[in-house]
Amino acid sequence: MKSDLTRPIGVGLIGFGTVGRAFARLLTREAADLALRRGVNLSLVAVGTRGADTKRDAVLGAGVRWTSDLASVATDPRVDVVVELLGGIEPANGLIRAALGAGKSVVTANKMLLAKHGTALQQLAREKGAGLGIEASVAGGIPILRALRSSFTGDRVTAVSGILNGTCNFILTEMEATGRPYADVLEDAQRLGYAEADPASDVEGDDAAYKLALLARLAFGRDVSVDQIAREGITRLLPCDFVYAKRLGRTPRQLAVARVAPSGRLLLSVRTHFVSEASLLAKVTGPFNAVEVRGESGGPFVFSGRGAGGDPTATAVLADVVEIARGGAPGVQAPPLGFASLEPCTPAAAEEFVSPFYLRFIVKDRPGILADLARILAEHGINIDAVFQAPYEDKSALPFVVTLEPVSGEALAAALVAISSLDFHVVPPLALPMTE
Amino acid sequence: MKSDLTRPIGVGLIGFGTVGRAFARLLTREAADLALRRGVNLSLVAVGTRGADTKRDAVLGAGVRWTSDLASVATDPRVDVVVELLGGIEPANGLIRAALGAGKSVVTANKMLLAKHGTALQQLAREKGAGLGIEASVAGGIPILRALRSSFTGDRVTAVSGILNGTCNFILTEMEATGRPYADVLEDAQRLGYAEADPASDVEGDDAAYKLALLARLAFGRDVSVDQIAREGITRLLPCDFVYAKRLGRTPRQLAVARVAPSGRLLLSVRTHFVSEASLLAKVTGPFNAVEVRGESGGPFVFSGRGAGGDPTATAVLADVVEIARGGAPGVQAPPLGFASLEPCTPAAAEEFVSPFYLRFIVKDRPGILADLARILAEHGINIDAVFQAPYEDKSALPFVVTLEPVSGEALAAALVAISSLDFHVVPPLALPMTE
Repeated sequence: MKSDLTRPIGVGLIGFGTVGRAFARLLTREAADLALRRGVNLSLVAVGTRGADTKRDAVLGAGVRWTSDLASVATDPRVDVVVELLGGIEPANGLIRAALGAGKSVVTANKMLLAKHGTALQQLAREKGAGLGIEASVAGGIPILRALRSSFTGDRVTAVSGILNGTCNFILTEMEATGRPYADVLEDAQRLGYAEADPASDVEGDDAAYKLALLARLAFGRDVSVDQIAREGITRLLPCDFVYAKRLGRTPRQLAVARVAPSGRLLLSVRTHFVSEASLLAKVTGPFNAVEVRGESGGPFVFSGRGAGGDPTATAVLADVVEIARGGAPGVQAPPLGFASLEPCTPAAAEEFVSPFYLRFIVKDRPGILADLARILAEHGINIDAVFQAPYEDKSALPFVVTLEPVSGEALAAALVAISSLDFHVVPPLALPMTE
Repeated sequence: MKSDLTRPIGVGLIGFGTVGRAFARLLTREAADLALRRGVNLSLVAVGTRGADTKRDAVLGAGVRWTSDLASVATDPRVDVVVELLGGIEPANGLIRAALGAGKSVVTANKMLLAKHGTALQQLAREKGAGLGIEASVAGGIPILRALRSSFTGDRVTAVSGILNGTCNFILTEMEATGRPYADVLEDAQRLGYAEADPASDVEGDDAAYKLALLARLAFGRDVSVDQIAREGITRLLPCDFVYAKRLGRTPRQLAVARVAPSGRLLLSVRTHFVSEASLLAKVTGPFNAVEVRGESGGPFVFSGRGAGGDPTATAVLADVVEIARGGAPGVQAPPLGFASLEPCTPAAAEEFVSPFYLRFIVKDRPGILADLARILAEHGINIDAVFQAPYEDKSALPFVVTLEPVSGEALAAALVAISSLDFHVVPPLALPMTE
């Protein structure tokens, strides 16, 4: 489908929430400029949204057909490109399949759907010679997927990692700045619109895991599934962890990491890391996102920017529509994921994850705690790097921190089982990797 | 030209310096993997280099034709893609024109040539339906040109800026870390291979200006020429400037900036800025590069990575070759610069550059210096923010610093002419904008 100034490319939008509305307005505002300067003639011809009658937006012009019948947009003969901004699995999946099946190109920001069914959708797009644009599904306006698909083809990626969830990053950097506890800061985030009423998908790491699955497929050409990604939420961090982080020259960040282990298998995790204050990632604050790519020959490369929000995400959606109109989209031109086909993915075992660690305990003070800890760690062959115990008033809930020299995830897990059975814990111990 | 596994795409390399050798070895090492996993079948068939007989590299295999006749590579019928890594204007320009004229695609990292003749070359490529890959010409392995061409088409870019010269960044961050003077650190940089024997193009800002011209064309669709970019080198910075920078919570960075001024014209400059220590750019140290993009709807986005060196640059060259083999390269598919055509560029006047400034004087101490300065600044309507004068032993060469509230470049230039005529200067005054 090449753009032709005499016959505009019809865009059909399904979903009219924050991003859908921002996209519709952006497309309407930019259409004349895109035709004049970019040589791409786009026209919004249909909007499908539940309760279409109540949502009509006069800014979008009289030529737009508004409908509550979402499927009619996916099959509308005037529509060349379907933009799906509903979110969720169904009906999005069925609508996208219907559009691709009818030979229409599709642009979507639906990370959950792409993480779970993206490989099948990309296969269908390729069979039909239709474009499938997915840039907006990861890290909002940061063009990281296109970079992995087209710019890192000259290198072998060894690791892709990043701050992929703006909600978690906002909460962690607010906790750091204010010293307030998790629950209070979550309330602020909800009031400011940075967190959902039910924040579980964000704070437990599921959202970042969807995005990591997509990044890892593009980076490594392996069919990574969300279930293969180890996840640990940010909900157990306490104000004292931020005090110790600072003392260690570090700051807590939820990182999604996909890295080639020595065996060649992939280490896949979403968890909180103590990152060095000297790193670029430490400067990524509030709702911003960042992705770091390392290769055999190049890198580290860091891409940062606003990871969510209507306007930045809408620009990424529109850029995909423009690419499809130019005939250069994946599915139409290149292999959908930059690879001829995806290999199966076998995740690496925990023993391949080796890192220095921060261990924090909240204990009821009694003699012999350090002796017990030191004995169990030694029994598991783990070396202590430093011990931090500040004098506290409250002897019934005393923070107690040990940093460890590089240790495998497997050895640490075994040691933590033994440590957890001791009698002095007020809350379960917290273990966070320390990363440069 | 679509890749076909039965008939490999022939690559001809012209230039066998650091990047040329790294590219040839990378291509040879990765060819089998690219065919298998990326579906792109590439073969290095010819290397053109002066003194070819003495440079044969056995690693590249027996099938490679070595020649000192560079033009024969550009017109070799077995060559589908010509990779030009000579640098400089001629013979590179003539060779690229010959290759494009013969319908061959070209990949080049030649920033000086592209800055001066890139628009004409892109026009020629488009006429011939040949690809012209230029990603490696700016910021080494950082895929910023492709991002501007394909990913920011959904937004209107308002500013693109960055640390584009690794030599300057190495020198400035070394001066900061060690407190040593410019000349000493330059010698280190030369010994380490970060600076040329004749460093003028790097330290005077020409190299960054070539790159900025390319970035600005892709960002704004205007035909920016190198002559339109104001340039000021890093050679006048003194150790005391780094002391004052730290006191101001800032760090000196050579920034290349292209920004839409209130009039709609472009502000174009390469100069040293005092950037805030809180910014991401302050964390970009040593020979690393970074580019920041701001748009009406999205941003700021920051892309950072290794900006030079054989291996990272070679990966960017290879990614362009892969894109051409897939049929998706500019010239073949999209408009060469992402825009249908480039508009003429009229740079903004100095009066549109408004910024707080750092002013540093080295003075022979005498009574009334501050009074003279304050009077002249007031006469030009310029407000002083703060004055820094540390007690120094050497009264014959005393650093004296004034920070200014936001002032236009025009008013400041006029004031500096008047100030420079005063009798107390040991060296000419230094004025640096202070940027967030």
